[in-house]
Amino acid sequence: MLKEIGFVEVGQPFEGFLLIKSASKGVASNGKPFLTLILQDSSGDIEAKLWEATAEDEQTFTQETIIKVTGEITQFRGKPQLKIQKLRPTQPTDGVKLEDFLEKAPVEINELEERLTQVIFEMENPNIQRIVRYFIKKYEKELFLFPAAVKNHHEYVSGLAHHVCTMLNIAKDLKRQYDDINLDLLYAGIILHDLGKLKELSGPVTPSYTLEGKLLGHISIMAEELAQAAQELNIDGEEVLLLKHMILSHHGKGEWGSPKAPILREAELLHLIDFIDARMNMMNRSLEKTKPGEFTDRIFAMDNRSFYKPTFEK
Amino acid sequence: MLKEIGFVEVGQPFEGFLLIKSASKGVASNGKPFLTLILQDSSGDIEAKLWEATAEDEQTFTQETIIKVTGEITQFRGKPQLKIQKLRPTQPTDGVKLEDFLEKAPVEINELEERLTQVIFEMENPNIQRIVRYFIKKYEKELFLFPAAVKNHHEYVSGLAHHVCTMLNIAKDLKRQYDDINLDLLYAGIILHDLGKLKELSGPVTPSYTLEGKLLGHISIMAEELAQAAQELNIDGEEVLLLKHMILSHHGKGEWGSPKAPILREAELLHLIDFIDARMNMMNRSLEKTKPGEFTDRIFAMDNRSFYKPTFEK
Amino acid sequence: MLKEIGFVEVGQPFEGFLLIKSASKGVASNGKPFLTLILQDSSGDIEAKLWEATAEDEQTFTQETIIKVTGEITQFRGKPQLKIQKLRPTQPTDGVKLEDFLEKAPVEINELEERLTQVIFEMENPNIQRIVRYFIKKYEKELFLFPAAVKNHHEYVSGLAHHVCTMLNIAKDLKRQYDDINLDLLYAGIILHDLGKLKELSGPVTPSYTLEGKLLGHISIMAEELAQAAQELNIDGEEVLLLKHMILSHHGKGEWGSPKAPILREAELLHLIDFIDARMNMMNRSLEKTKPGEFTDRIFAMDNRSFYKPTFEK
Amino acid sequence: MLKEIGFVEVGQPFEGFLLIKSASKGVASNGKPFLTLILQDSSGDIEAKLWEATAEDEQTFTQETIIKVTGEITQFRGKPQLKIQKLRPTQPTDGVKLEDFLEKAPVEINELEERLTQVIFEMENPNIQRIVRYFIKKYEKELFLFPAAVKNHHEYVSGLAHHVCTMLNIAKDLKRQYDDINLDLLYAGIILHDLGKLKELSGPVTPSYTLEGKLLGHISIMAEELAQAAQELNIDGEEVLLLKHMILSHHGKGEWGSPKAPILREAELLHLIDFIDARMNMMNRSLEKTKPGEFTDRIFAMDNRSFYKPTFEK
Amino acid sequence: MLKEIGFVEVGQPFEGFLLIKSASKGVASNGKPFLTLILQDSSGDIEAKLWEATAEDEQTFTQETIIKVTGEITQFRGKPQLKIQKLRPTQPTDGVKLEDFLEKAPVEINELEERLTQVIFEMENPNIQRIVRYFIKKYEKELFLFPAAVKNHHEYVSGLAHHVCTMLNIAKDLKRQYDDINLDLLYAGIILHDLGKLKELSGPVTPSYTLEGKLLGHISIMAEELAQAAQELNIDGEEVLLLKHMILSHHGKGEWGSPKAPILREAELLHLIDFIDARMNMMNRSLEKTKPGEFTDRIFAMDNRSFYKPTFEK
Amino acid sequence: MLKEIGFVEVGQPFEGFLLIKSASKGVASNGKPFLTLILQDSSGDIEAKLWEATAEDEQTFTQETIIKVTGEITQFRGKPQLKIQKLRPTQPTDGVKLEDFLEKAPVEINELEERLTQVIFEMENPNIQRIVRYFIKKYEKELFLFPAAVKNHHEYVSGLAHHVCTMLNIAKDLKRQYDDINLDLLYAGIILHDLGKLKELSGPVTPSYTLEGKLLGHISIMAEELAQAAQELNIDGEEVLLLKHMILSHHGKGEWGSPKAPILREAELLHLIDFIDARMNMMNRSLEKTKPGEFTDRIFAMDNRSFYKPTFEK
Repeated sequence: MLKEIGFVEVGQPFEGFLLIKSASKGVASNGKPFLTLILQDSSGDIEAKLWEATAEDEQTFTQETIIKVTGEITQFRGKPQLKIQKLRPTQPTDGVKLEDFLEKAPVEINELEERLTQVIFEMENPNIQRIVRYFIKKYEKELFLFPAAVKNHHEYVSGLAHHVCTMLNIAKDLKRQYDDINLDLLYAGIILHDLGKLKELSGPVTPSYTLEGKLLGHISIMAEELAQAAQELNIDGEEVLLLKHMILSHHGKGEWGSPKAPILREAELLHLIDFIDARMNMMNRSLEKTKPGEFTDRIFAMDNRSFYKPTFEK
Repeated sequence: MLKEIGFVEVGQPFEGFLLIKSASKGVASNGKPFLTLILQDSSGDIEAKLWEATAEDEQTFTQETIIKVTGEITQFRGKPQLKIQKLRPTQPTDGVKLEDFLEKAPVEINELEERLTQVIFEMENPNIQRIVRYFIKKYEKELFLFPAAVKNHHEYVSGLAHHVCTMLNIAKDLKRQYDDINLDLLYAGIILHDLGKLKELSGPVTPSYTLEGKLLGHISIMAEELAQAAQELNIDGEEVLLLKHMILSHHGKGEWGSPKAPILREAELLHLIDFIDARMNMMNRSLEKTKPGEFTDRIFAMDNRSFYKPTFEK
Repeated sequence: MLKEIGFVEVGQPFEGFLLIKSASKGVASNGKPFLTLILQDSSGDIEAKLWEATAEDEQTFTQETIIKVTGEITQFRGKPQLKIQKLRPTQPTDGVKLEDFLEKAPVEINELEERLTQVIFEMENPNIQRIVRYFIKKYEKELFLFPAAVKNHHEYVSGLAHHVCTMLNIAKDLKRQYDDINLDLLYAGIILHDLGKLKELSGPVTPSYTLEGKLLGHISIMAEELAQAAQELNIDGEEVLLLKHMILSHHGKGEWGSPKAPILREAELLHLIDFIDARMNMMNRSLEKTKPGEFTDRIFAMDNRSFYKPTFEK
Repeated sequence: MLKEIGFVEVGQPFEGFLLIKSASKGVASNGKPFLTLILQDSSGDIEAKLWEATAEDEQTFTQETIIKVTGEITQFRGKPQLKIQKLRPTQPTDGVKLEDFLEKAPVEINELEERLTQVIFEMENPNIQRIVRYFIKKYEKELFLFPAAVKNHHEYVSGLAHHVCTMLNIAKDLKRQYDDINLDLLYAGIILHDLGKLKELSGPVTPSYTLEGKLLGHISIMAEELAQAAQELNIDGEEVLLLKHMILSHHGKGEWGSPKAPILREAELLHLIDFIDARMNMMNRSLEKTKPGEFTDRIFAMDNRSFYKPTFEK
Repeated sequence: MLKEIGFVEVGQPFEGFLLIKSASKGVASNGKPFLTLILQDSSGDIEAKLWEATAEDEQTFTQETIIKVTGEITQFRGKPQLKIQKLRPTQPTDGVKLEDFLEKAPVEINELEERLTQVIFEMENPNIQRIVRYFIKKYEKELFLFPAAVKNHHEYVSGLAHHVCTMLNIAKDLKRQYDDINLDLLYAGIILHDLGKLKELSGPVTPSYTLEGKLLGHISIMAEELAQAAQELNIDGEEVLLLKHMILSHHGKGEWGSPKAPILREAELLHLIDFIDARMNMMNRSLEKTKPGEFTDRIFAMDNRSFYKPTFEK
Repeated sequence: MLKEIGFVEVGQPFEGFLLIKSASKGVASNGKPFLTLILQDSSGDIEAKLWEATAEDEQTFTQETIIKVTGEITQFRGKPQLKIQKLRPTQPTDGVKLEDFLEKAPVEINELEERLTQVIFEMENPNIQRIVRYFIKKYEKELFLFPAAVKNHHEYVSGLAHHVCTMLNIAKDLKRQYDDINLDLLYAGIILHDLGKLKELSGPVTPSYTLEGKLLGHISIMAEELAQAAQELNIDGEEVLLLKHMILSHHGKGEWGSPKAPILREAELLHLIDFIDARMNMMNRSLEKTKPGEFTDRIFAMDNRSFYKPTFEK
């Protein structure tokens, strides 16, 4: 069986299918053009150079193309590189699908859908329930495909829904410790808080920031969408105001992108649960790739810390 | 003629009409109730105590009532206080009007209206022009009455329109130095940037923060209003996106309340012009009350600095 | 029935038993000595002045004495004050007990003990289990009486154990979301993290900081105690090192008092759960005293924010 | 006609004259020496390598020499590089002049001189006028040649005078909005504020920091020069003190290099106008090189932001 | 013998001579004027009220007058206050002198003079020596009378010279550990670094900030004086540049008022020795007033810390 | 005689013995393995590549091996590199010793031992003296071999003892200026403050951080050791508490790794003396390698400053 690219070792040969994550042209010191390709499967990615690239190559080997490649794993400035010996684009008969080359949430989409349906069912406040239903319907497709971010945490297919569902579970559990929590508000805040990412990011595969994303950001995008939804649904209670506040304040403070700090218990909790799930996701995925008794790579979004995996963990 | 309350001196008698800015009840150590009144005219305000206040007093002397008062200026913990000898509410025959007791912009409302009309007339981009017209019409009354803030700068009747018109003048002048400026964008940004204050604040007289103001803030309120206006007017060009960005970014950075820092030349300029006009307003009004060769009171919003007035100024 | 001191209103008479929280002597402008007493029951506290206090008064009305007092609620500088008409120390026949005048955790001590016993029973790692047992035994009395802090959060009798038990419950719930968590480490970290407070604070009633607390702090005190326990129990595995790290890092970063930031998943989680429970405790107790549609007092330890209670909450 | 070096594209041949901005020697892995040259004309610069450089080459191709070069534009690590095929130093018969290879202010020197003369003429305060005249005379040559900085803003020939003149224009315009401004003080502050750069920097071509610049900085250098000028001119009024304060405080605060924050209205304004002109210069020059619908390179001195050029700009 | 005002206790009578540190007029609630006096001797100060003050009192009891007073120590808001029973200005026959009422350095002026003379004698670099001699001569009187600051450290008569001499001793000792130190530079930097205070402060008795002090600060004042001295003495070596740098950088960084951070070994050392002597002076003087086993008052300039005096200290 | 590696120049041949500081394997673009060696003697280090390394080479040329090497100094990306022509491991007959290749303190070990012995002899407090003796005995070997840090300051053999002895000398000198200093406490604090480094670092040669060092840090390690020592020695006075505080607080504040800021005069002084000696060590060693009239390399741990060496220094 073929080895995944995230687990090859320097010196080994490689043969298999890979997705082109990005392709950029350069001109070598001998004056000949070459392509720098980042190739990926669901386990990770690797850099490769295609020397003396023809004009045809340039048109063939573009972003989001799947290729068949034979080569060897070498090392360049301390990082593995794939030395290409042979490559070709895939053909229909190869039977490979884009989604097989993307990292995915560890939970199936239909499970995530079920969890959301159930939560909406549990809501008691009809205004809040109608607003949440409106958005689930509006984004029924993207919501279950988009990542939660371009990098750092939950940056994989279905990452957004995975993030939301884990947060919903934590919220439900916290209600048992702190009975005063208004679960309708908290559930709705969790489901809506990051929906602006569906417009801030370009798509589920090789996502980047859109112009709207750069100029407005997902927080303001979603606050606006919520206002329009409430108008359309003809809902005007205090709930709408509170949900807007929760979206605006979920990053916790100005330095982190929120125009208002939380001044509602459920807004503060939304921020804290978001914080926990993002950090657990980053730590867990780093620790998975780390051997007992060793340290993870530095995690930039966690103050560049490197975490220790105890010798008695597996 | 009667002296204004902002210019009385300790030891002098006082007789005249004053507006109650706030009234709060206390109980003295002898167990009797009393009222603490903040009394103002257009020149400033002063504290006064109404000892042994009856239930009737309490109902008569409330916020925004105008009274006739006779007394003497004393001093309490280093600050002047009005010792009340006689007081009564005004009668129709007194012929006094609320607006005479409020600080006002040094420019008349109709001049401010004319300036705005002229700027809109100069605009070339029809989308931008229609959006601005929409808001001028929507808020034709409040826009010319509201202050620009509860405190710090332009905190007087018509303060918002005064702030906007000065900024428009500066923008026009800067265009002569930097020809690349898109004046339509900059003008529109200036006119719209603080309109959210019309909902963030409670009104032109004795303004305070509304619930919406505390939970959302004027920046997000206005971004949402702009989205609704564009939808209503059926305008969907890049201009709308850019104007939203200008509103969101006009405080310059996250710590100062903007969810996005400016990444458009005209957004950066809007922020800088806003900064200059706010600071000039604070400095000028403080220096007016200061004698040559002395220092102003500390200005909290300018890092608590105290400014020097040269001996050769008048 | 007698009203509690936390719920009296200005103008009302008061008669009942109160505990002296602090007593300090002053000399009035007439040259006579007086006592400033802070008087409390389990619902809150109030200031009172005992004018013209005799030397005998001074020896009678000292900290932690319970008194019977008759008086009236007046107001001084915006805060309620108890005007004393009559007072005397309690007699055995009054049948009052110190503990009735102290705020207490909303959970009974035996419930807290049971929860801890059960958690220790669930532990699988024998080294960790033995260490935890050692401390539960060592502090079997204080652990269930001390507050978790002098002020801010869980600052009431049994506050420390209440804080620990809520955190344990949250930890157990989070394990269901994140299966990789080492629950033995996390449980132990939660139980041990604040035990240094038993030496940092002077006691469960009117607690203050000890000299040791001021010079070393509860974090270093506990790290040292853990080292001694491990030596005594003859345990020397990696678990001891990790538990020490968890104690040292539980404040999250240097500015907040931790000499090391967390670099172990369970240490990071310990910090986050501590953060959540402290914040929920502060918000909930402030919101309880707030009417729907109003804002709480400012909470100093939460960046001085004031939280909103929605109109639809009870 | 020859293409300018700032506008060539990878893959194109190049032939023309270029100025050596810097030259440094290295030794290649084959043990042979080579030269790294940064070559510029008034449109930009490019790196080039002269392999197997002889001792004579080293003495010929030095900083500020103009050369004739033939070659090809290649790419090295994502940046264009000039592959040298032929090169020689210029000869008198080539008819090229140093100034043709330097970036220059978009305004002619005599226009800048006229503007300054006119401003001095408008001054009413004789002390201030004499001091300004003194410095214009003292530095009549350098003032119109030096850049305003080594990098970031106005870093071109005549940049300092260009910066000063634009600021003077803005000051004059602001006076119309804020009549209280003392224009003599403000004009003088603008003209003098950066004159210390004439000693802080090494010269108008390829400027670097002098030893005096590194140890004292242009702010303290100029404060000292002003003191000496006042002494020489026998002027001792408050104006001298205020002008010194304006120079010392024009960076706005300690973190930005000013030993005193502005506590004079005109000092604060000087700082704000300086801020605006520096930022406009950086944004405008970056946007000029950017196509509509795209973002500029990151501007380090503006918090590393990248600015958007609207699609409807030219 | 008379007790000193810094050591009286509440309830005691007081009779003696005191210096008026400041006098300010108020109007009491009964409409009568009164004077608030701060009275001091060399041990400390105390507040006193002179009720129903006549116009004559106001002219008699002014700042820097010495009075004879009889009264009693009472307490007002937790601080001691002197209740005046009798007071009169001193007469020639009282035989009291201003200097007896001021706190003084613990070392005699002639000792300080000798120490400085000796250090100058040890200098080997003639340029540095001449500059230092110039300033010692120029300020031969003030240098030995002024305090080193208005508050915080060495804020007593001869405080500046005391600070300088202690620093010189430390410098000499450090040379034994670090032989590379250039002692001439370091000695000169120490002697000159704070001389700007002679113009920044108003005088040795009840010092306050001068206008020049507020607008320029002692660092820039002294840098300018040094430039003028060098010109007058016709000295132009690198030594002058380095001494200027040492003066400019002695506060260590921008936030602390230095326009340049130290980039010369002796400049860095000057900063560090200044830091040590200031902190030792603050701690020692606070600890002197503290009993063993107790904590000092909070020291504002040391991050508001309160220091512990061990039980085994005397 | 052979030149030391810290003083070779590009283009020169090299022949001599060097110690392998680190060795790491790579794979070249031709697929062949190579070794990157960092080679050092007591004067500095240099990088070298061993191309086409065999499996035997890999086992032979490992960290802490001494080799004989012939080659030439070339330059790679602006840094010198040793081009290996011949190399072999040393033989017994070469007569070279590991210690000759390590940087060492400029003072001999026996001098450092004597200094410590003498200081202990001077101590008057028996508890403090016994504790210090205990640790000198416990670490009699490591204490005189370990560096004070992995990098930055005193990062050489015997660096820790050198650092301690210089600090002791400074402490003794400061006592002459500030007689109130408790020299026993200060001496003990200096000797003990960094002993935790003996467990935080892996050893005197090529030191790195241990797991214990990363998880606990030398401050907490030493606080724990001190507690155990006191228990073993049966000492329980306030001295132990104060010494623990001094160890915990010697980094000065939370951001710098101390869980408590100093609140004892001797703790503050310990911090300041540590600060001075670390900074002097960094500056002096950088300036030694710098020519008069030039600047040192940037010193990262001193805010990245580069220091000037006056032209009149040698």
